[in-house]
Amino acid sequence: MQKMISLTSDFGLKDPYVAEMKAAIFSICPSATIIDVTHGVEKFDFRTGAFMLASAAPYFPKGTVHMAVVDPGVGTPRRSIIVATDQALFVGPDNGLLILAAESQGINQMRQIESRRLMLPHVSSTFHGRDIFAPAAAHLANGVSLEEFGPQITEVVKPQFTKVTHTKDALTGEVLHVDDFGNIITNMHVRDVEAFRDDIIQVEVAIAAPLQMKLSTTYGDVKPSQPLALIGSQGYLEIALNQGDAATRFGAKLGDKITISRS
Amino acid sequence: MQKMISLTSDFGLKDPYVAEMKAAIFSICPSATIIDVTHGVEKFDFRTGAFMLASAAPYFPKGTVHMAVVDPGVGTPRRSIIVATDQALFVGPDNGLLILAAESQGINQMRQIESRRLMLPHVSSTFHGRDIFAPAAAHLANGVSLEEFGPQITEVVKPQFTKVTHTKDALTGEVLHVDDFGNIITNMHVRDVEAFRDDIIQVEVAIAAPLQMKLSTTYGDVKPSQPLALIGSQGYLEIALNQGDAATRFGAKLGDKITISRS
Amino acid sequence: MQKMISLTSDFGLKDPYVAEMKAAIFSICPSATIIDVTHGVEKFDFRTGAFMLASAAPYFPKGTVHMAVVDPGVGTPRRSIIVATDQALFVGPDNGLLILAAESQGINQMRQIESRRLMLPHVSSTFHGRDIFAPAAAHLANGVSLEEFGPQITEVVKPQFTKVTHTKDALTGEVLHVDDFGNIITNMHVRDVEAFRDDIIQVEVAIAAPLQMKLSTTYGDVKPSQPLALIGSQGYLEIALNQGDAATRFGAKLGDKITISRS
Repeated sequence: MQKMISLTSDFGLKDPYVAEMKAAIFSICPSATIIDVTHGVEKFDFRTGAFMLASAAPYFPKGTVHMAVVDPGVGTPRRSIIVATDQALFVGPDNGLLILAAESQGINQMRQIESRRLMLPHVSSTFHGRDIFAPAAAHLANGVSLEEFGPQITEVVKPQFTKVTHTKDALTGEVLHVDDFGNIITNMHVRDVEAFRDDIIQVEVAIAAPLQMKLSTTYGDVKPSQPLALIGSQGYLEIALNQGDAATRFGAKLGDKITISRS
Repeated sequence: MQKMISLTSDFGLKDPYVAEMKAAIFSICPSATIIDVTHGVEKFDFRTGAFMLASAAPYFPKGTVHMAVVDPGVGTPRRSIIVATDQALFVGPDNGLLILAAESQGINQMRQIESRRLMLPHVSSTFHGRDIFAPAAAHLANGVSLEEFGPQITEVVKPQFTKVTHTKDALTGEVLHVDDFGNIITNMHVRDVEAFRDDIIQVEVAIAAPLQMKLSTTYGDVKPSQPLALIGSQGYLEIALNQGDAATRFGAKLGDKITISRS
Repeated sequence: MQKMISLTSDFGLKDPYVAEMKAAIFSICPSATIIDVTHGVEKFDFRTGAFMLASAAPYFPKGTVHMAVVDPGVGTPRRSIIVATDQALFVGPDNGLLILAAESQGINQMRQIESRRLMLPHVSSTFHGRDIFAPAAAHLANGVSLEEFGPQITEVVKPQFTKVTHTKDALTGEVLHVDDFGNIITNMHVRDVEAFRDDIIQVEVAIAAPLQMKLSTTYGDVKPSQPLALIGSQGYLEIALNQGDAATRFGAKLGDKITISRS
């Protein structure tokens, strides 16, 4: 059986931290296949980390172990947890990072990681990714059963995302993520936006002048450098420029308010 | 048999996009070995992507599947193609990205990707890397035959590179790539430059004052921070500083004109 | 047996250079498992490269081949070497890059790489990572014996790190590394700092006003944005901000002097 482990963190790639986690995994599970979801989550921003993990998780084979660590509370009493779904196992800190992805798959069971013998021999206070989560992911990939890690738990920290507010003719949400192209990804799901599909809509983003447009299907529907709105590949409304950087053009950043309305 | 798949894109590494492609590959071909050529191609710049893929491809084992996606035309009628050579299979958009590497190996056959059952169940309009190219690469690695993907084609888009112009005592070309060290890689191949090997040459790059030099063999041939010209590891004339950043020093950027002449 | 190869370089990730090394490895050793330690070492800075390799190496399985290339002297008469310890094999240039990690494991044997048949057919003057070190690492992973590479050597270049100076009530060292979080990692090992564990200490770093603090255990011991000093996950004294960037706040950079004293 394939032993697939995904990694998500805010560690960046210039330091040896990611390698130390991978080395810890391979030391315990030599036949693991490791995929980096990203190590470029904005530092300490577990909401964005949760969004990225939830975006990628559906594409992984059944049985994948997803290890994630965006962990400002490392070394404090925040718990280390494992969350099991029908599709996957999630390992990381109990700060909401894992729950968005896990809930969309249906959570079966949650455990607190307590067993010292399933951690590295020396556990630092500042790098649980390497000393606790990576070994746990590797042991899970090896088939160690959930109950060996620690007691079952029923309450975990939920990630707090702003809800989209609906009126008859408008939706208000926020910028969930600005991607590396400068595409502005909002928290408005295709389900929220469905009612506006055939209308000319007015989009207000950050401080820019309101934009008038119909929903596009792809970037190339408009001329290069022209703005458009579409349902992105993650299923969320996205404001973009064809072959350009919308976030820079419109001065949009994480958490900014976005409104769309019939015009 | 080894199932080696290389990936080239302009996606960057902060988003989950590359992971989604890899997850799609492993879901279809669990025993694949994936190597990232780069995900740092300048956004939408398929010429540079073509150069990078052509630089790396010769070092891969025979039978490698090279998947590349720098794809400003995603979702428009531009075709999705497979190009087969004696050495490798290339998968990506029909915009020239694959052809520089493939032509240097000798093209045997080209196919348009049309078969829906060899794509992901849901094909988005904005992310064919994940929904079409990654699955195609995985199926090719699994040994699915070319004819199953779609009809044979005979014409594809060729990448447009500026040709080097020769006079008796001078060569004019352009900056093909500025690498992460700031080395200025030109489009002048070792074959073009051969005739100047023993001369003192004058190099004109961007707005900088002309440089007088002989061709060097390696960076350490000159003192630290001193300029030099050499044939780089990809076989192209390169203007560099020993332990320094030539592109910043000389203000050179992609596409700038470069002239070398006997002085 | 597992064939684990780690890679450390200053090549960055935007160019195809790392991929060319990996392709060269897989062409010789198809079953290798490759882990990137980092390719983000500051250009030409083999001291920082040595620190990163030494940080990561202890977490790798026994038998790992560590290939490293931060190599301003490529193509000059500097030697290419293999260093064998009880735990691992190290491959790279003879400029000190390998020795910090190797010495901490106990060096058994050192060899100069001379055998042309264990290199790529064409060896460039500018990219020994691809043409010499990657093939050597792959052949070592395949079990080729040390004596086949070249003659035994007894002297190699040692990396020059500033020693920590001790007085009765103070330690003086330097900034060894600033990580991607902005944490300031010093060259003071936990052994040096032990004597100050229960004291209120004064920390002087770069041009910032002296800080008064006790050693913390983890970042969350202080309020967000507050400074702290702790023993980091690599075993060295680290000056940090809880959920903040200490290097930017205090203007600290590589090589800056750090003093701690009883106050």
